[in-house]
Amino acid sequence: MSTAHDTSARRDPSITAGHDGTAPRTPYLILDLAAVRARYRLLSSLVPGARIHYAVKANPAPQVIATLVRAGSCFDVASRPEIELCLSAGARAEDISYGSTVKKCSDIAFAHENGVRRFAFDSLAELHKIAEYAPGADVFGRLRSDGQGSVFPLDGKFGSPAGLVADLLVEARRLGLNPVGVSFHVGSQQLDPYAWGPSIASTAEIFDKVAAAGIRLGVINLGGGLPGTYGPEVPPLAEYGRAIDECLERAFGANRPEVMIEPGRSMVADAGTLHSEVVLVSRRDGSAGARWVYLDVGRFGGLAETEGELIHYPMRTAHDGEPSAPVVLAGPTCDSADVLYRHHPYLLPESLRAGDRVQLLCTGAYTVSYSSVGFNGFGPLTCRCVDSPDAAGA
Amino acid sequence: MSTAHDTSARRDPSITAGHDGTAPRTPYLILDLAAVRARYRLLSSLVPGARIHYAVKANPAPQVIATLVRAGSCFDVASRPEIELCLSAGARAEDISYGSTVKKCSDIAFAHENGVRRFAFDSLAELHKIAEYAPGADVFGRLRSDGQGSVFPLDGKFGSPAGLVADLLVEARRLGLNPVGVSFHVGSQQLDPYAWGPSIASTAEIFDKVAAAGIRLGVINLGGGLPGTYGPEVPPLAEYGRAIDECLERAFGANRPEVMIEPGRSMVADAGTLHSEVVLVSRRDGSAGARWVYLDVGRFGGLAETEGELIHYPMRTAHDGEPSAPVVLAGPTCDSADVLYRHHPYLLPESLRAGDRVQLLCTGAYTVSYSSVGFNGFGPLTCRCVDSPDAAGA
Repeated sequence: MSTAHDTSARRDPSITAGHDGTAPRTPYLILDLAAVRARYRLLSSLVPGARIHYAVKANPAPQVIATLVRAGSCFDVASRPEIELCLSAGARAEDISYGSTVKKCSDIAFAHENGVRRFAFDSLAELHKIAEYAPGADVFGRLRSDGQGSVFPLDGKFGSPAGLVADLLVEARRLGLNPVGVSFHVGSQQLDPYAWGPSIASTAEIFDKVAAAGIRLGVINLGGGLPGTYGPEVPPLAEYGRAIDECLERAFGANRPEVMIEPGRSMVADAGTLHSEVVLVSRRDGSAGARWVYLDVGRFGGLAETEGELIHYPMRTAHDGEPSAPVVLAGPTCDSADVLYRHHPYLLPESLRAGDRVQLLCTGAYTVSYSSVGFNGFGPLTCRCVDSPDAAGA
Repeated sequence: MSTAHDTSARRDPSITAGHDGTAPRTPYLILDLAAVRARYRLLSSLVPGARIHYAVKANPAPQVIATLVRAGSCFDVASRPEIELCLSAGARAEDISYGSTVKKCSDIAFAHENGVRRFAFDSLAELHKIAEYAPGADVFGRLRSDGQGSVFPLDGKFGSPAGLVADLLVEARRLGLNPVGVSFHVGSQQLDPYAWGPSIASTAEIFDKVAAAGIRLGVINLGGGLPGTYGPEVPPLAEYGRAIDECLERAFGANRPEVMIEPGRSMVADAGTLHSEVVLVSRRDGSAGARWVYLDVGRFGGLAETEGELIHYPMRTAHDGEPSAPVVLAGPTCDSADVLYRHHPYLLPESLRAGDRVQLLCTGAYTVSYSSVGFNGFGPLTCRCVDSPDAAGA
């Protein structure tokens, strides 16, 4: 994977192909399936014995799903179309977990009829829906997490306090369901490897409380949160593995339950490169004013996660290494919200001109599926998957 | 058009159709073409002599464009696909204005080859592109506006100071282009009818300054900003007409130039009703905690403009009139950003349950085209256009 400081851009023909008209029309995402496979192997060895459920929402390209089916992954889905996608890519229904706690009755019924066994809930109302439309299903109670330390905390939208989760798991049994465990989510792009600790400890307490009611839970679902490698502030994945293992050991000792993890971003982010083109470079307030660089991709064409400037994608241009200066970076639409980076200090080469290519790295997650159907007439971001044989011994 | 206080919901069969399985699957937008025609007539008479250029980005449904072509409208476009859309709906190329100041060279060339005459710019770099790829074209210099008083100010993304606009219009002539006038945009959903005043005055100064260089400009493009009727805070359209006419009179007197206006939101917002369904109602912090209502449509399925809670759509349910209480309103995805209203005090009936229909009114603008291709597996919002004969004498 190239980094922001990689100077190989000059040797990469794709980055200088903007002017001659022969390269494909930008913007588009190139996703490297070999990188996804390598990441799957790394994530599989992170927490001993953990089952990987890829969070499909991060990048639902059929080739990604098929690649992960072949690698042995399970899946976490948020909707009926994601179930259909996984099944059509060869996944087994029993390897699919319906992790959303907000599901239409008809979608629960669809999942149940097609063999999906695992469902999550965080409220009594959802539990009743599952009991009616997926009778006898395995259910997870979702514990609230404050998401501290993450770039995108979930902020109260999902999960219940531990006491309520325990009560609902007992109620689940009464409703004829099979309570199997607890799930939570510590927030997307979590930068603190120990962030899982408090929720793991609460889960152990829920296990004990529910056991007192005669129910033996067997699964802890650690959810998502593992990071993409956007910059040097991101700890190495191995640190997450060690921290999570330590927290599990402390909370469960020799009675460690089955462990699920649901990486989405971490599985695909680093494998993607978004190819874009400069549409305009302008300075409209004299030489002391801001230099605006407008790309042909913006917040509505796939870069929705630049909202609030929380994710900083590394960039490459064919002019890297030449004198650079600050820019305001914006998308191509007439929308005022379509500004990518105004406050985060991006430096780009002063020689950058309309027609030059710009590559945004680590863009494999939460880009293609976020893009609009055609805001301002600009069509959705396309994703082209490329593959190469895995390196020997990898 | 129904309002938030309309109690006719109980007599409207579409709003109680959620449970029986016979109604079309939500979410979807119903757009009333007769309401669009009526609005076009109203907008046409707002500023005497003004030419209406519908801002296609607000709702690019082909039936909307065709309806406006038949009504006599011109169009403002932001991209090549929007030009193709207008031409295929029967618009004449000379009635299309390419109002974006950020255009790819290849798209400028496409527009020029297809007969589009009017192009906007706000920088020397863009002017050079237009001169090369659309030689001899009519050009507008875009003046910066601070957008004060609007819900969505454009915030420096577009437009240049008056002095630079004047210089660039003179330079345009030198480059073989035909400088015809000045455009600006006072910010979307502008709530101050007098907000156009300062930019109209600056435009008159630019006209004078450029005249001193021997160039006679003839067109002022007042841009967008006219409102949708989301709530009682929105002044009646007639007040805008009077205020703008007064500002034009003050700035130009008897020498009033040709006037263009580019309503987008104001043309289609009130004509749309978004039909959605409650997926879950939950209270996860005991009886004193917040009541969360999750709809099957959210920020990634068409309601992007709820970002920052700046637009407050009126809502109707079949339970309107029953005791109501505050809610947090969220969309169906697993994304933490997919919360529609957390701070704005929405009251919804306490009897609201999963499966109930909720209609969001005034949703004809900036919904369908903003929706994602399929985030979390949820497909894009569909738009169904309905029509009825215009009322006699309307």
